[in-house]
Amino acid sequence: MSRGRPPTHSRESLLEIGNSLFQLHGYHGTSLSMILEACGVSRGSFYNYFGGKEAYAIEVVEHYQVLEMDSWQEEFRRLKGSHAEKMQIMMHRLVEEFSMTNERVGCLLANLAGEMALASDGFRAAIRNAVNRVLCAITQDIIICQQEGSVRDDIPAEELAWFIWDYWQGALLRMKVENSRAPLYQVIELLWQQLLPPQHSLTARKRPASQKEART
Amino acid sequence: MSRGRPPTHSRESLLEIGNSLFQLHGYHGTSLSMILEACGVSRGSFYNYFGGKEAYAIEVVEHYQVLEMDSWQEEFRRLKGSHAEKMQIMMHRLVEEFSMTNERVGCLLANLAGEMALASDGFRAAIRNAVNRVLCAITQDIIICQQEGSVRDDIPAEELAWFIWDYWQGALLRMKVENSRAPLYQVIELLWQQLLPPQHSLTARKRPASQKEART
Repeated sequence: MSRGRPPTHSRESLLEIGNSLFQLHGYHGTSLSMILEACGVSRGSFYNYFGGKEAYAIEVVEHYQVLEMDSWQEEFRRLKGSHAEKMQIMMHRLVEEFSMTNERVGCLLANLAGEMALASDGFRAAIRNAVNRVLCAITQDIIICQQEGSVRDDIPAEELAWFIWDYWQGALLRMKVENSRAPLYQVIELLWQQLLPPQHSLTARKRPASQKEART
Repeated sequence: MSRGRPPTHSRESLLEIGNSLFQLHGYHGTSLSMILEACGVSRGSFYNYFGGKEAYAIEVVEHYQVLEMDSWQEEFRRLKGSHAEKMQIMMHRLVEEFSMTNERVGCLLANLAGEMALASDGFRAAIRNAVNRVLCAITQDIIICQQEGSVRDDIPAEELAWFIWDYWQGALLRMKVENSRAPLYQVIELLWQQLLPPQHSLTARKRPASQKEART
């Protein structure tokens, strides 16, 4: 990262291009020549800037994640309501960001995770670190929800965070298969209406059968 | 499928080869020439047998799924215990099948789902149908569990089936990122100890903090 740097805006735009390419074609499906062509830089300059495809991909992941997490936190702070209500609003916004054109693409981390069978240890570690950063943030949110009484506390916050993450990642895959955002909306509803609230408050709140029909 | 067929054992072995190739390299990462080389057949014979790469991949998915579902049901029938206990045993066996060498590979459907951004409508439909067949089977199992009282019935069986599927798929991704089967064991424990049982039976069963440490 201490190599010859292009002017900041240019380095950022190269990382943005990488983000798009890796989203669309995956890590292994994105060849170096595709990167060079999309970025309009020579092989020599590219190696000078980033040191290679793997280091470039790792920087793309980290750059993308810092941007995403910053904008998430800023948006979150502007919301009103309980912490649980804010989390639900944010999750809905996340789904709405998957417009019709890019809903098959999904989350960069999820897409890259699918390729880990072929990945180098360095790249795998970068993905694992990125996932862990998100998990830390979710855990902190869940702790606050448990303190305000909106999330069950019979399961430790960290386990609930992994649960939410895994469940969400699986629904992202199904979004691609079904080419629809419905799986993600189903996750939000099931999480916040049934699975996450303190369970004693749900007893005898069995849904009528008619409501099931409306949801399928 | 009505094209010139090689002898059955040979067609099956060609499908098995496809299964391995698609597991390892994905659909788009498996080129036609990789398939021809691994199968040891000419391009002409391959087109004669299968009609093309997409039709071949669809037949691989369907062949693999019939085998998997048959052997699952046969094994399931031989188990003793409640339906919920049998499901837990089967899920543990599923995890144990991911030996150290192939644990980065995971489930063919999960791996292919990640590529749906680039898939043709025909291939996407084949994956969707395959996923739906599994979902029907899980739904039937959950209905039996609800009848025997081992699974909560405040959420319709079909929604629980989607939930289990999505959650499992997400954990398969994390297995690859962490290069460990621990995420799958976590899913089984959280599902069957906390999330699936009738919730009234869990009230005041809060786990001690020490147990949390042992599980991380």
